[in-house]
Amino acid sequence: MCPVITDVRLTPILIADAPLLNVGGVHQPYTPRLIVEVETDGGAVGLGETYGDHRYLSRATRLAWQLIGTPVAAVNAIRLLGAGESRLLDDNPVAGGLRGTLTSDKVRLSVISAFETAALDAYGRELGLPVHALLGGKVRDRVDYSGYLFYKWAEHPVPDAPADEWGEVLDPDGVVRLAEKFSAHGGFRSFKLKGGVRPPEEEIAAMLALAEAFPGHPLRLDPNGGWSPATATTVAERLTGVVEYLEDPTARLADMAELHRRTGMTLATNMIVTAVDEIRPAFDANAVQVMLSDHHFWGGLHATRDLAAVCHAYGKGVSMHSNTHLGISLAAMTQVAATVAHLDYACDTHYPWQAEDVVTEPLTFIDGAIEVTDAPGLGVELDRDALARLHERWQAMPALRDRDDVAAMRAADPGYRPPDTPKY
Amino acid sequence: MCPVITDVRLTPILIADAPLLNVGGVHQPYTPRLIVEVETDGGAVGLGETYGDHRYLSRATRLAWQLIGTPVAAVNAIRLLGAGESRLLDDNPVAGGLRGTLTSDKVRLSVISAFETAALDAYGRELGLPVHALLGGKVRDRVDYSGYLFYKWAEHPVPDAPADEWGEVLDPDGVVRLAEKFSAHGGFRSFKLKGGVRPPEEEIAAMLALAEAFPGHPLRLDPNGGWSPATATTVAERLTGVVEYLEDPTARLADMAELHRRTGMTLATNMIVTAVDEIRPAFDANAVQVMLSDHHFWGGLHATRDLAAVCHAYGKGVSMHSNTHLGISLAAMTQVAATVAHLDYACDTHYPWQAEDVVTEPLTFIDGAIEVTDAPGLGVELDRDALARLHERWQAMPALRDRDDVAAMRAADPGYRPPDTPKY
Repeated sequence: MCPVITDVRLTPILIADAPLLNVGGVHQPYTPRLIVEVETDGGAVGLGETYGDHRYLSRATRLAWQLIGTPVAAVNAIRLLGAGESRLLDDNPVAGGLRGTLTSDKVRLSVISAFETAALDAYGRELGLPVHALLGGKVRDRVDYSGYLFYKWAEHPVPDAPADEWGEVLDPDGVVRLAEKFSAHGGFRSFKLKGGVRPPEEEIAAMLALAEAFPGHPLRLDPNGGWSPATATTVAERLTGVVEYLEDPTARLADMAELHRRTGMTLATNMIVTAVDEIRPAFDANAVQVMLSDHHFWGGLHATRDLAAVCHAYGKGVSMHSNTHLGISLAAMTQVAATVAHLDYACDTHYPWQAEDVVTEPLTFIDGAIEVTDAPGLGVELDRDALARLHERWQAMPALRDRDDVAAMRAADPGYRPPDTPKY
Repeated sequence: MCPVITDVRLTPILIADAPLLNVGGVHQPYTPRLIVEVETDGGAVGLGETYGDHRYLSRATRLAWQLIGTPVAAVNAIRLLGAGESRLLDDNPVAGGLRGTLTSDKVRLSVISAFETAALDAYGRELGLPVHALLGGKVRDRVDYSGYLFYKWAEHPVPDAPADEWGEVLDPDGVVRLAEKFSAHGGFRSFKLKGGVRPPEEEIAAMLALAEAFPGHPLRLDPNGGWSPATATTVAERLTGVVEYLEDPTARLADMAELHRRTGMTLATNMIVTAVDEIRPAFDANAVQVMLSDHHFWGGLHATRDLAAVCHAYGKGVSMHSNTHLGISLAAMTQVAATVAHLDYACDTHYPWQAEDVVTEPLTFIDGAIEVTDAPGLGVELDRDALARLHERWQAMPALRDRDDVAAMRAADPGYRPPDTPKY
């Protein structure tokens, strides 16, 4: 009765990206993603999207065969695929980065997230139901997103790189002009600035300028853990009443807890809590007040709902983190966000920065929100020509198959080394 | 596309019950339940079951009209029905009892649980899918239940009461003989004894006798908070290595925490944590190590999964509580239990004690487990003749429309007063 998965297709691609700056470096001209298609014996094809770097791709290849023969409804079972294997592989975690220590199981869950999303999409298509209906149904018709502001260069410092129309953003005026573009195109009302790039005084000035230009609009600043406790304290004090929260102002759990205790500033994270076993230490220490969920990190849409349940029980706010992604993931984020009653903040998304996509009709922001579709599955269709073209690029550019913001920075500054202590 | 609820039928019933003893009194000859039917515009009828006492019935009546016009898929929205109203009604909570302080919102959630179960049942029937498939799919094919042992009288102390075939159970030998019956009929392997009835020395002796008669079988003892901290400590020390956990040995959170700290005994509860806002204080104090979920308490099957997610994040075990219930609730318990990966213990059920039911084919325990059906919805069918008969009894017996174990005890002991301090 329930359709069974009969085929899984994994297509790594490279998508054009803008020279967006962050604490560790700059985005490369092209960034990898992995597109997952699952096909059922009913003929439905479901879509998923996740990280495309080699470690995700190789894990996806190992796990894909285990999906064959699985009912599309069996997403709880899909979530457990390869869990035992993770323990065997877990001898070589990668320290640091935006997800804390990147364990084998975090890689697995990021792969599983795309499998689960694809299974739900296929299932929804078979049933003629939207994915949200498979998650208990939507409790809102629109999901709010924040306008995600970046410091950026006008162009990539390498030949033959994709151009963008956003121009250079390196000072408070530039940040405000960028926010105005996000307001004009998409109607975004909340703004998040990716910080940790310019000296803290400049970033404070940028937030104050945004607050003046957009009075009453929710604002956030995210330096990706790039500040020392002393700097973070200064910023928190200066921006109290200006931002709704600071995101990962400092990298260590104990420092986050102390910062909140001292300043009362609401702190959000997508770095110190990115897996189930990291929840309790952070909540017990009150190191975080808002969890930025990410269905890629946590293992899918059900896992995102589980995280929201934990947050609700512990009085923590919920919002949503974003890494560079395409329309499949935005559709998935929107479907699950629509089902979470206690989603208290606008979600983050990089989507407006992406000039390329693998869906036939890119999703559109109206008043800073995406409408929650009731179309079957995720409500997006795969553009096979685009997929093939972006996969050809992936084949042609082996050097860019792993995202490396440091390497991209070295193209401009050959002696560049990422900071191994807090940058500011 | 998604079927919409067009009618809701609420049928209060009285079902025969055995004279089972607990810390506060004895079960009455008949106990109330509420049977909920939701009908959709597609013609499907979904079933739910919950508490039938007047406060549940009146709340169900208030909320039922809000269900009309709701899509059956919209269970997240159903869960929120009447939440605002609860806050207005919350001026008169009922202290004590098996669910802690019975707030208006706990009553609401118990009603919602039946609405949600009925919506999922109807939805599953429309789609031809089992309810577990609407919860992410089963991760096991059988759900283990414990054999629920009670001290009991041979018969009710009133005329014209229903008889039962289980006989009197008032001492360790009787408890072992009862467990042997549960083993022979249903193949139960775990046993739980409802304690707080006999002096603690006798209940310890009963557990030791069970351990001797059933070596290696998981055992539990539940006095419903009836022991003082000193008594609980003695029992915990005597039964270390004999029981897998003690359930609500003492009634106060702080005493539970201290008991665990002193004795290391694993403690379970369905009393000190029965609502979302009670989770954090109990977990923070480590007053409980195993949560006994109950989809009636928590507001349905999605809410049960949410609770399990919180337990998983906090390293707490999960099992399932039971109050007197019929086959609809057992089917619902089994469907949701099948989807919870981290269900670590056999679930509780009163079902073997119920001689009457409103389903056409009572569910059957084999090797102490219920097979997880893949039939549409909950996989049970309503016996309308039985429903009508049991509703006629409800109409004929207004005095029994609220469960009252104290009143039942007074039939044998007119001067009986329930203990208002720990019984032992």
